[in-house]
Amino acid sequence: MDYNKLSVEKHLEKRGKLEISMKMPIDNKDDLSICYTPGVAEPCRIIAKDESKAFNMTSSKNTVAVISDGTAVLGLGDIGPVASLPVMEGKCALFKKFAGIDAFPIVINTKNTEEIIQTIKNIAPTFGGINLEDISAPRCFEIEKRLSNELNIPVFHDDQHGTAIVVLAGLINALKLTNKNKENVKVLVNGVGAAGTSIINLMKAYGVKNIVSVDSKGGICNLRDDLNSDKKELVDEFSKCGNLEDLITGMDVFIGVSKGNILTKEMAKSMNKDAIVFAMANPTPEISPDLAKESGVRIIATGRSDYPNQLNNVLVFPGIFKGAMEVRAEKITEDMKIAAAIGIANSVNNLSDDKIIPSPFDEGVSDIVAKAVISNYKK
Amino acid sequence: MDYNKLSVEKHLEKRGKLEISMKMPIDNKDDLSICYTPGVAEPCRIIAKDESKAFNMTSSKNTVAVISDGTAVLGLGDIGPVASLPVMEGKCALFKKFAGIDAFPIVINTKNTEEIIQTIKNIAPTFGGINLEDISAPRCFEIEKRLSNELNIPVFHDDQHGTAIVVLAGLINALKLTNKNKENVKVLVNGVGAAGTSIINLMKAYGVKNIVSVDSKGGICNLRDDLNSDKKELVDEFSKCGNLEDLITGMDVFIGVSKGNILTKEMAKSMNKDAIVFAMANPTPEISPDLAKESGVRIIATGRSDYPNQLNNVLVFPGIFKGAMEVRAEKITEDMKIAAAIGIANSVNNLSDDKIIPSPFDEGVSDIVAKAVISNYKK
Repeated sequence: MDYNKLSVEKHLEKRGKLEISMKMPIDNKDDLSICYTPGVAEPCRIIAKDESKAFNMTSSKNTVAVISDGTAVLGLGDIGPVASLPVMEGKCALFKKFAGIDAFPIVINTKNTEEIIQTIKNIAPTFGGINLEDISAPRCFEIEKRLSNELNIPVFHDDQHGTAIVVLAGLINALKLTNKNKENVKVLVNGVGAAGTSIINLMKAYGVKNIVSVDSKGGICNLRDDLNSDKKELVDEFSKCGNLEDLITGMDVFIGVSKGNILTKEMAKSMNKDAIVFAMANPTPEISPDLAKESGVRIIATGRSDYPNQLNNVLVFPGIFKGAMEVRAEKITEDMKIAAAIGIANSVNNLSDDKIIPSPFDEGVSDIVAKAVISNYKK
Repeated sequence: MDYNKLSVEKHLEKRGKLEISMKMPIDNKDDLSICYTPGVAEPCRIIAKDESKAFNMTSSKNTVAVISDGTAVLGLGDIGPVASLPVMEGKCALFKKFAGIDAFPIVINTKNTEEIIQTIKNIAPTFGGINLEDISAPRCFEIEKRLSNELNIPVFHDDQHGTAIVVLAGLINALKLTNKNKENVKVLVNGVGAAGTSIINLMKAYGVKNIVSVDSKGGICNLRDDLNSDKKELVDEFSKCGNLEDLITGMDVFIGVSKGNILTKEMAKSMNKDAIVFAMANPTPEISPDLAKESGVRIIATGRSDYPNQLNNVLVFPGIFKGAMEVRAEKITEDMKIAAAIGIANSVNNLSDDKIIPSPFDEGVSDIVAKAVISNYKK
C-alpha cells in the first residue's frame, strides 16, 4: 500500500482529521438559554467561586492539548508549526481512538524556550493536560521540566517519556525471555536526544545499572569536552569512552534511537548470546530485523508496524492521560511511568521472541496503563 | 423555566459542551498508517513547501479560536479565564450550530495587553480565524487592532463588531419603518465601552452623521478632561456636553449598551415622535419594553430572547467567519460589516415594529452574512 498517496488523498477529502461537535442540542430558544445566555452564567459563577468545578462542568478541562513548535517532526526535522499540524491532529485522533480522550492540537510560532514556556503557561487554564510533541532536544528538557513544575495539570513530553515507557515495557519482557536480569544486564543506548535520555533515566529508575550511552561522536564519558549539561548528567561509573563498534562488543542489549543502518552485521554479531536489539530509527531502523536475525540477535523490535514487536508510543500516552486526568494528578511521576511499563509488559499473553509487546489494537491496554497511573497517584 | 438550574444540571451531566471526534477511521494498522505514521509525513511535506495547503489538508486551519482573558464575561465582569470557559464553549457550539464551523475555546491567563497579543500571535498558526470574546475595554481595542494588522487570518472581536453589525441591521429596518433617514436621524449612544464605540464607528461608516455619545459621566465632548484616547476620537461636530436627561430630549434613536433601567419613562417621553430604542443591557435592559411602549416609544429592541426584536450577535459572527474563511480573507473590513448588516436587515420578511430583525433560528441568515462578506472581499 502506498500510504503517502492514500494519506494525501484522505487528508484532502476530509480536510484534516478532527471535528468539533456539540454535546448539548441547540434547537430552540430554550436550548439556547441553557447552553448559552442567560443560563450559562450560573456555571460561570460556580467555577468563579471554585475553579476545580471546571473539571465537572466544561469539556475543555477534560481536553488534552497536543502542543508542538514543529522543530522535530517525525523524521522530517524542523518543518515549522503549520506543517506539523497533520501529525498533531493525528495524535489527537489517537487520544480519542485509544482512550476516548478529547485532544486538540496547538502549534507554536516561536522556537525560543522562554517564549514557548510562557505561551503554554498563558493558555494552560484552557486544558486538563498538556502533551508536548516533536520539540527538539535539548530545549524540550527545559520546557517540560519548567511546565511540570509551574503548572498544576499533567505535562508529558511523549517523545521522551512515551518512548521510554514502551521501551522499558519491551525490555522487561525481553529480559524475562532471555533469563537476563536488570541488575547486571549490559545495555548500550545509541542516540541521546529527547528519547534516548529519557530511556536511560527511566531504565536507571527501574534498576538497570550497567548502561553505556553513545551519541554520534562516541561514548558519553568524562574525557569528552563537548557535552552539554544534559549529556554530562548521564555520566556515571558504567560510562565508557570509545566508538560504537568497540562499545557494542559483549553487550546484552542495544537500544537505538539514532539513525538507519548504523548497527552493522558485525557489530550485532559481537554482542552477547541472546542479544536484544531495539532498533527504533524511523523509517529505516538501525538494523533491519532480517539482518539482525541473521547476525544471531534473539529479540529484535522496531518502531515499524510491518515487523513484529512494534514499540509504539500509542500504547502509552492515551492511558497515561486517562489515568492522570481521572484522578486530576498534577504530575506524571517516575513511579507512574515504571508501573505503566510493568503493566504493559504483563498484559502480553503468550509471550514469545516475536511478541514482547501488545499491539495498539489489543483491547484494554490504555485501561491497564491508566490503572497503573492511578494506583501510583499520591495527593 | 429556571435556565440557571437547567444549565448547571446539563453542564454537569455532559461535562461541558464540546466533543472532539475523528473524521478518519482508525480501525486497523492500515488506517493507522494513513492517518498517522508513516503516511502522514507526506501531507506534512506538502504543507512545509506551501503553507497555504494547510487549508485543504488540516481541520485546524478551518477552525476558529474563541479567545478570552475572562475580564468582561456576560454581565459578570472579570471572573477569570477558567470561569469563562462555559461561555467560550457555548460560543463554539453556536459556531457549529449556525454555520457548521469548528471552533475551539482558548482562555488566557494574563491581563497584560502585550502578553495577550504575543500569546495569540504565537498560537495563531494553529487556526483559520480568531474570534476575540469578552475582553474588557479599552484593552480590547489595542488587542484587536494589533492582531488584525499583524496576522494573516481574520480577527474579529465579537463584543465590538458583532454587536455593531446587528445594531446597524436593526437600525436600518427601524429607519425604514419610521421613514427616518440616516443623513439626519438623531442618535444617542449611551455606553462607550467595546460595543458602544464600535456601534458609533460602524454607524458613521454607514452614513449616520448626528450621533451623540454618552458615558456614565455624561456627553462625550471637548470640555471633558477625563477622556482616554479612544473616547477622544469620538468627538466631532455633533458631540454634546450634558447629562443623559438633557441630551435625550428630541432624539430619534436611543442605543443603550450601558446598564439596566437607566432610561426613565420621562426621558423616553422626551424623545421625538416614532422614537426607536435599542436597550441592550443584560439581563436588565436600559428600559423595559413595556415601559418604553407606555412612554410612546414606537420600536423597542433588546438583547433578550423573551421580548420581540432580540438584537443577538449570533445572527452575525457565524456568517462573518463562514464567509471570511471560505475566501481566506485576511481581514474583516468595514465594507464587509456594512454589507452584512444590510443583508441581515433585508432578510426580514413581513417587516413590522415587532419584527425588525430575524430570529437566530430563521434559516439562511449565516449564509446571507457569508455572501455579504464574500462579495465585499478584495484580494
